This record gives sequence, C-alpha cells and structure tokens, in this order.
Amino acid sequence: MGDAPARTELKVTTGPIRGSRKVHVGPLKVAMREVDLEPSCGEPPLRVYDPSGPYTDPNARIDIMAGLPELRSPWIRARGDVEEVAQREVRPEDNGMLGPDRSGGVAPFPRVRKRVLRARGGSNVSQMHYARRGIVTPEMEYVAIRENLGRERALDAARDGESFGASIPDFVTPEFVRDEVARGRAIIPNNINHPESEPMAIGRNFLVKINANIGNSAVASDVASEVDKMVWAIRWGADTVMDLSTGRNIHDTREWIIRNSPVPIGTVPIYQALEKVGGVAEDLTWEIFRDTLIEQAEQGVDYFTIHAGVRLPYVPLTAKRVTGIVSRGGSIMAKWCLAHHRESFLYERFDEISEIMKAYDIAYSLGDGLRPGSIADANDEAQFAELYTLGELTRRAWAQDVQVMIEGPGHVPMHKIKENMDKQLEACGEAPFYTLGPLTTDIAPGYDHITSGIGAAMIGWYGTAMLCYVTPKEHLGLPDRDDVKVGVVTYKLAAHAADLAKGHPAAKLRDDALSRARFEFRWRDQFNLSLDPDTAEAFHDQTLPAEGAKTAHFCSMCGPKFCSMKITQEVREFARLQEQSSAARPELVEGRDRDADIGMAKMSQRFQDQGSELYIPEG
Amino acid sequence: MGDAPARTELKVTTGPIRGSRKVHVGPLKVAMREVDLEPSCGEPPLRVYDPSGPYTDPNARIDIMAGLPELRSPWIRARGDVEEVAQREVRPEDNGMLGPDRSGGVAPFPRVRKRVLRARGGSNVSQMHYARRGIVTPEMEYVAIRENLGRERALDAARDGESFGASIPDFVTPEFVRDEVARGRAIIPNNINHPESEPMAIGRNFLVKINANIGNSAVASDVASEVDKMVWAIRWGADTVMDLSTGRNIHDTREWIIRNSPVPIGTVPIYQALEKVGGVAEDLTWEIFRDTLIEQAEQGVDYFTIHAGVRLPYVPLTAKRVTGIVSRGGSIMAKWCLAHHRESFLYERFDEISEIMKAYDIAYSLGDGLRPGSIADANDEAQFAELYTLGELTRRAWAQDVQVMIEGPGHVPMHKIKENMDKQLEACGEAPFYTLGPLTTDIAPGYDHITSGIGAAMIGWYGTAMLCYVTPKEHLGLPDRDDVKVGVVTYKLAAHAADLAKGHPAAKLRDDALSRARFEFRWRDQFNLSLDPDTAEAFHDQTLPAEGAKTAHFCSMCGPKFCSMKITQEVREFARLQEQSSAARPELVEGRDRDADIGMAKMSQRFQDQGSELYIPEG
Repeated sequence: MGDAPARTELKVTTGPIRGSRKVHVGPLKVAMREVDLEPSCGEPPLRVYDPSGPYTDPNARIDIMAGLPELRSPWIRARGDVEEVAQREVRPEDNGMLGPDRSGGVAPFPRVRKRVLRARGGSNVSQMHYARRGIVTPEMEYVAIRENLGRERALDAARDGESFGASIPDFVTPEFVRDEVARGRAIIPNNINHPESEPMAIGRNFLVKINANIGNSAVASDVASEVDKMVWAIRWGADTVMDLSTGRNIHDTREWIIRNSPVPIGTVPIYQALEKVGGVAEDLTWEIFRDTLIEQAEQGVDYFTIHAGVRLPYVPLTAKRVTGIVSRGGSIMAKWCLAHHRESFLYERFDEISEIMKAYDIAYSLGDGLRPGSIADANDEAQFAELYTLGELTRRAWAQDVQVMIEGPGHVPMHKIKENMDKQLEACGEAPFYTLGPLTTDIAPGYDHITSGIGAAMIGWYGTAMLCYVTPKEHLGLPDRDDVKVGVVTYKLAAHAADLAKGHPAAKLRDDALSRARFEFRWRDQFNLSLDPDTAEAFHDQTLPAEGAKTAHFCSMCGPKFCSMKITQEVREFARLQEQSSAARPELVEGRDRDADIGMAKMSQRFQDQGSELYIPEG
Repeated sequence: MGDAPARTELKVTTGPIRGSRKVHVGPLKVAMREVDLEPSCGEPPLRVYDPSGPYTDPNARIDIMAGLPELRSPWIRARGDVEEVAQREVRPEDNGMLGPDRSGGVAPFPRVRKRVLRARGGSNVSQMHYARRGIVTPEMEYVAIRENLGRERALDAARDGESFGASIPDFVTPEFVRDEVARGRAIIPNNINHPESEPMAIGRNFLVKINANIGNSAVASDVASEVDKMVWAIRWGADTVMDLSTGRNIHDTREWIIRNSPVPIGTVPIYQALEKVGGVAEDLTWEIFRDTLIEQAEQGVDYFTIHAGVRLPYVPLTAKRVTGIVSRGGSIMAKWCLAHHRESFLYERFDEISEIMKAYDIAYSLGDGLRPGSIADANDEAQFAELYTLGELTRRAWAQDVQVMIEGPGHVPMHKIKENMDKQLEACGEAPFYTLGPLTTDIAPGYDHITSGIGAAMIGWYGTAMLCYVTPKEHLGLPDRDDVKVGVVTYKLAAHAADLAKGHPAAKLRDDALSRARFEFRWRDQFNLSLDPDTAEAFHDQTLPAEGAKTAHFCSMCGPKFCSMKITQEVREFARLQEQSSAARPELVEGRDRDADIGMAKMSQRFQDQGSELYIPEG
C-alpha cells in the first residue's frame, strides 16, 4: 500500500506503485511509469502515463517541508518576460478568520516565497500567447513526449475508433501541441508561480484526463494529511486536483498543497472570497474578489473556476426546476445578482479578470453555475443559456490569449449527453470541455461514482477533455481515503474506455498486454498492468491465497480440472496443424463430401495423438 | 439489513427492504413494492418493480423446507394440456458423483415431487404457442400489470428518449404482451414445473432486466446458504438467476433453489453433462446431454443456455485471437468438435432439443460460446459467424413456437457496442438480446462491474433486453455476498439508466421523486427511494450520524451556513415575486433603460425585505 516510511516527520504516501518503475524520458526527464513483464513472455515493458510525481519514485527525496523541485523555473526565467515582485501580504481573512470557526490551526509553509513572479510590464506569459507567436515551449515538448507513451509501437497497427470529429495524431509532436494550444483546443495549465508542476495538456486530441476534488477537514491540525489527500489522489491517477477548501486555514493549506503538487491545482476563488465577507453572498464585491485572485495567483493556482456565465436574466429560468441551482459557485452568484438586482460582476469585469490570468498564465475553467442537478433538469433553457454565454466569454478570453476550458454537467440521461458535447463544441469553439460525470440516473446514491462513470465514459468518447470525478459519497457525505481512490480509479477506467473508443493509438496497448497476461495465466503481470494492482491481487488472494496460485495455469473460476483458456491453447495447436485443411472454410463444411469426412477423421486422430487431454506446455 | 429471524431453522435473508412496503395488485396479486414518502411532501407512494418475492414480505411465512406457494399451478392446469408423469429417477451422477470430489453433502429437498408435468401427447405449452393462437394467458396479464408500475401517472408527461426503433407503449396491455411474445420480441421464461415463479418478461419493449449468476460453494454442507445466494440476489433486484454450479450436489442444490425461487432460473446444462462424463469433454454424447435436459426440465429450470452456435468450422477462426475462447460452454463444445472432428451435436440435434423445450415451456438462451474475451477480439469473424448461426437457430426454434433469447458479449470497446446490437436485431429477428456487460476496457480487474456497467447501460439503451451482471471479482475470484450485492445494484442502475434513455414512460418517476426529496432535504425519502437504502443511509451517517441531521435542511457538503439548495428556494420566491417583471427577459436586460434600472432597484429592495439572509421556511 505504499506505506514505506517517508524521510520526514510529516508523512505522506510514498513508494512505487506495485509492479512498476518510475522512468524519466529524454533531456526533459519526462516522468512515466514502466511495468516490467515476466521474462517468459518476451514482451517489452509497458509504458503508462503517470501523474503521481516524485512520490512514487524510490529515488526521490520527499520532504513536504521543502516542497518539490522547481522543474519549470529555468524554462520560465529563460523566456525573460517575468519579474519578481513582493508577495501580497497575507491577511487574517485569507485564512478565513472572519468565517465560521473551524478549530485547529495550520502552520505556514516554512519556505513560503516572499517574492513571486508576474509578467513583466503588461506582457502575456500564457502558453497560448507563446503558441500563437509560433513558439514551442519546453512545456509543450514535455507534453508531447508524455502523451506519446508507447505510441511508436502502435504505429503499425490498424487504428479504429469513432472520434466524432477529433483529430488525434498518430504521433504527437511539440508542434502539434503548440498548434492545439494556439487554436484554443487544448490548454496547458501551469501558473508561473507553480514551477513544481509537470506540464500536462487538457484537450480533445490528447488522452482524456481526470480531476479529483479535495477539501480541508474541519479539524486541520495535521497539515501532512491535507497534503496527502492530493498525493493519494494523484497516486491513483488524478491528472489535476481541485482544492475546494472552505473556512479556516485555507490560504496556508493551499500553499502546502501547491508547493508539493506535481499536478496543476485548480480552485474556485469565489469560495475564499465568500469566507472573507463572513459567508454573506450579498456582501461580495469586485475588489474583494480581485484581491483573492491576486492572492491565489501569486501562490501558483493553475486554473480558476469562474462562474461568469451566471447572468442575472438567467437566474429566474431556474425557478421551475426540480432541483434549482446546485452549483455552489452558481448559487453564490445567483444570490448576489438577486440581492443587488444587478448583472454579475464576474461577467461585467471579465476582461479585467483576463488581465490577471495572462500575467500568471492561469487558465479559465468557466464554471457551469446553472448545471442541472437532476435528470429532470438536464439540457434545459437555463443550462444552455449559460453555455452560450460561456462561448462568448471564451472568445473574449482568447482575444487576450488566455487559456480556457469549459465546465459541464452534472445530471444528464444518456440520450441527452451528446447534445451537451455538440452544443459545447459549437458554442465554445472547441475549447476543452470539463464535465462532472454526468450522472445518468438519480436513483443510486451511494453508487454515483458508477452512475456518473457511465456518463463520463460516454461524454469522454464524444470529446470531453477532462472528467471531474465523483465519489461513492456524492450527495451523502464527505469522501474518505477509500472513496477518493474508488472515485479516481473509476474515472481512470472511464477515461481509458473513452480513449479506446476514440481510437487513441496508444490506448489499446495496455488492454492487449493485460489480456495476453490473463490468457497466459501471468497473474502478476495481470495485477501489475491493472489500474489498481493492490485491489486486483487482494481479490485474487481472497479465493486462492497461496503464492503458487499466482503462477498456476488455471484460475478460481473453473478450477484446475477444466479451463476454457487451456482449451483455447489446444485450439491454437489444432489450427496450426490443419492450416492447409479445408475444414477452416465454412462453405466447404456445408457441402462436405466423403473425402472431407475421411480427412476430418484423420485430423481427429491427429488431435488426439497430440494429447487432447492436456494443454500443450509453454516451455 | 433484513436480519429478522426466519421462522425455520434453515435461515435465509428476510424482512422488508428498508423504507418500503410489499403490495399485491389486482386479482392476480401482482407483487410490487411501494415507498411511502414523508407526509409533508404531499406525494403519493412511489411504486417500484420488485423481483424479491415473498422474502421481503413480513406477512409471508418463509420455510425453505416447504418451498414457495405454487402461484401458477392453477393457471397451468386450467389450460388442460399437461399431464403428470413419473419423475426421472435421480442417479448418483446427477449429483456429480463421477466428478471431482467436493466434500460435503446436500440433503435432498424434502418435498421433492415424484410426479412432474409435461405437455400432453406432443402438444406445446409454451407462452409463444398460446400467444400465436391469440390466447392471453394469466402470465401475460401478470406481466402487463407488473410492467406498468405507476405508468398511468406519467401519461400526461411529455415523453422523450431515443429508443433506436423499439416500440415502448404508453401503457402495457395484456394484448401487447401477447403480441410481443407471439412475434418473438419478448419471452416469459416459466417452466410448467416451476409454478412458484412470478411471471416476468424479457424484451426490448419492456423494462430492461438483469440476471445474477450464482454457483455452489466447494463445501456445500449448508443448503440454506446456497438458497440464500438466490434470495440475496433477488432482494437487490436480480430479475432472473442463473445457477452455474459444478461438481457435486448440483442436482439437489438446484432443486432447493428452484423450489424457493420466485424468479426464473437459468442453467447451462452442458456443465452438468460434463460432470456426468467425469469432466472429459470428448466423452460427451447426445444421449447424456438429452438426459440432462430432461432431468433439469422436470426440476423446473426456466431457460437453458445452449451453445449450439459453436460450429466446427468456426473453431479455427478463434486461433489468432488474443484470448481465444473464454466461454466455458463454448470451449467445451469446441473441444468436443475438435476431438471428434465432427459438427456439434447441439447444432445437429437442435430441433430435437426444441421438442423438449416446448414440452415444458423452457426458453432458449442461445449461448455465445465464441464471445470475445478481450477488447482485441471484439466484433471479430468468429463472434459474428456464430451470431448469424444463432439467428438461423432462432428461426428454427420459432418454427416450433419455442421462446428464444440470444446471449451476447463480453468485452467490447464503446465504439463497437452498437454494431453488436444492430447485427443481433438483424440476424435474430429482434429476439431478445441478453448480454454480459460488455466490458469497455480490460485494464481494470477489481472494477469490472464498472467497466462492464458502462457497456451494459449503453447496450441496454440500444435495445438489449437483459443484462447479465458482472461482480468486482470478475477475472479474479469467486464473488462473496458483498460482491453479489454490488454487482446487482450496479446492473440495476445501468438498466434503469437505459430505461430512462429509451424514454420508458414510468422510469423517470423514480428519479424525479428522489430528486425532489434531495432538494427538499427529505433525507429518509432520499434513502428509501434509492436502489440501496442501507448503503445510502450508512454513507450519510459516516459524516453526519446524528438523527437530527436526517431532518436538517442542509447537508455535509456545504454545511449549515451556506447551502446552494437553500439559495434556490430564495430564487423561486424571487421569481414568483417578479413574475410580471421584465427582468426575466434577457433581451430587455441587454438593452435596459433607466426605467428598468429603477425597477430593478425596487425589486432588489423587495428581495431584501423578504429576508434575503434566510431561506423562506416551508411551513
């Protein structure tokens, strides 16, 4: 379970993922994992995408007091367009001291930066800005290598899949990454103040990504456990993490998380702004919100959810819904709009927000504050009114070369999912779609990772670039460690199912390697190639715990006496023997004559002579 | 957890499903459940489909030594076309005494019938035969009432959905059931020797059904625990149960299960036949197989999986597959065909098998012995060659008025799922499709209930009539009680998601009722309306265990201070107040003038006067 002792008093989960090795590829040292297979099979190691960072690298020194190495600092500084400025002073309200009391204090991160980076004199440091000027950044190169995985091995294989208009290349070049970012079809969220992050892309022509949400506990005395929520989520495959903390200590907790995170961190700044006004939505102001953006920008948040599409006139459209407004950010803004009877300041100040985004390279995640919270409300007027406004805002952000993705629902029955994707592509000019599920039915609380995993796989296939996970506790309570893992693994398998269906050239390599291992009874390889090797092995051991059973040429389903996989091995041998025989051609069997019957009898004898009772040993 | 003491020493799980009442509707006493809602909401009880039988009825006397009441006996006998014959004598080999030793013995069912029913003198007692003669049987009437649920309540609501050519009626009449059965588009599997069963239909124009597989344990000393596997599976929603037992005691175990089962029981007779020849596939003969069919037919098995599509010429088509033949029945027959180099006796004797089927009204479940066992093998030549043969066999069965459904894969990536459904409809004349998943990726052993739940929901939407569940232990080991429950609930939610997407008129009633309960913080109603009330409540209590929290107007996600659902209640009140206001019209807001601004300021004041700080109390 990766409980190897960390080399610091503040422990987080470390140790390799069972059965795989960390590798660093090329001059940029792009982090991946490789799964070594049993030598008997003669197959090369399988390379897998790996967002888990240094925590799964036994050679890395993990010290959350120090934070991760600043991989991207030299790249950022080499561009010569940033300046160091004094960090905005931290105020008591940044840690929610005006908010409801949540006992326990969080120590400030020891090496907090006094000076932070900002674009020099009004310049633009976004990856989109570079891309549009034709520049290939190291971030883009990193992404290209990372996305390819073993794609070169698959080049010869016939590709299939239905990509619904996506343009997935046989091979990802840095120039391809640049072009996708320039066009707005992909984003690389990486704030210049989060140089610890390993660059990754979110876009329809790349691997489907997943996000995990974490939040602070009411009693946050143990900062390591807050950091470990992020470490645990990325261990199982979360590509980005959103910190949705509320209440006290959120500034300091966020600092610990970002300094130790190899994946992009997203937030919903309105949550913190609300804390600063004591939880009273009407008291929110542009000034407080703007100050919160700067605060978080300087800490290194990589993308902001901004609910700028919740416009005053759309609010009453939700009145007849079964479940009204279920987005927290959406309802905060709805309340503000109603209380003041004014247009949302997020909408009105949008271009000013973009000025901030481009000075740090923060990506927009345009929030769907009016997303449906039930099957009954799916695809309604309020939802699509907001979506078209998000399209308008996308164009405004792009006019300033700011990266954008678009958040999507929510609760949607299967037959209404594709309309969401189609409308989003049309309204938002192919900006990456980032959806929560969607949940395909409301009747299974306790299993909403599954009701939503179904919708997530489908919308991922249709073109969604990142899937926001849902845990089994959705609608019921706060997820624990096990829930987070189940949520992440469920979304990884949904994203992978989508990659397969889109015809991503490298995706099938892993399925095929695992299936070969299964067929050949290489149990260890089967475990190690799976998304969750620990669970796979534990389940196997519940029925056949002996170590010998892991190399046995049978499994618990049929037992040693009869095994369909063994029979298939006999079939193969037989097919090889009769390769020239007419028996393989159905049309000849239909009208077979006496000679054929004699031939068949011969073949029958030959098969029995080969030992039809037993499978042919591999050796 | 339904641990109310059973009134016999041989205990199975009894007691009502949390929060619901058993009801029996109409003169046929059709079994359903009703969920009573909190009186405050003013909603009628919600009626749900319920295959759990008398076990969840506190008024039923459960005694597995006696078996269930014979609901259908008077109906069967009233038709005047059956005769009583002496039961085939039970032989040692029926209980696997020639098979591998599996310790422990099972006592014979105490009230085993010495005389069993059979169609009188070559007549045909299948529901299809009656239907084609225009007869509406009580079984068809039962099904009609059962399928309607609260459909009459939904008649006024606008229907949506994409049914891909299915013809789901607004209201199910007995005549509609008859016509669907006559056409072969639905089956009602109910052997005349299983009069304990509550009639149910499997067909594309009915609710999507699910099947759970059970099998005997190696140590079968406790017959109650074998029966309880079936009781437990139907408690959570399994519509049919397949008994896939092997080895010893299988005849007696099956007798216990059938005598106590309110749902149709399916088997794979070749498994038992193989036991009778000591596990040596080559030694199988038509005579032994035929005798096994009679044995199981007299016990009351409702549908037989028959792998008659695994023809000799198709076997070599599997040789180049990554995972060969993964169906146990398929590989048994493949081995037989190869060893004898002869066409399958199941294929050659198919019409003789049909003669048996019609004498007891057993339905075919035509097995897909060549289904793909990996993503790599999906939709290949072997699979579709067999499917077209199953279509040929369907027509041959229909020529004798024998009911048929068709088994389907397996492992299929999302983009290849629909082709399976389309080809099945075409090849098999719309006979009901019954699929295992399909699993949409191979890389998540331990989570294959989810990889397959995705495919199951999709293929159910496309038209599959019954989904065979997959548990988390698939590919790894034998499922325990928890695995069975998780598998069943996962498939129930997948089937329901499919019903919703097809536009089934009654399906959405439950989603809407649950969503209203969620929105109005009726926690108990939310739990009780869910597929698994026990888990929903347990998850809720992990975060907010106090009893008071179940009536609290907030939840653990946002806490009492801020709640998006509360804000929506404010939005509604506001919308009501301003119903005549122009502010609800976006176009007016865009070009608003001074008068409008003044009006808005007034509305703002009015909203604040209404107490914008607090939600409007319900009372």
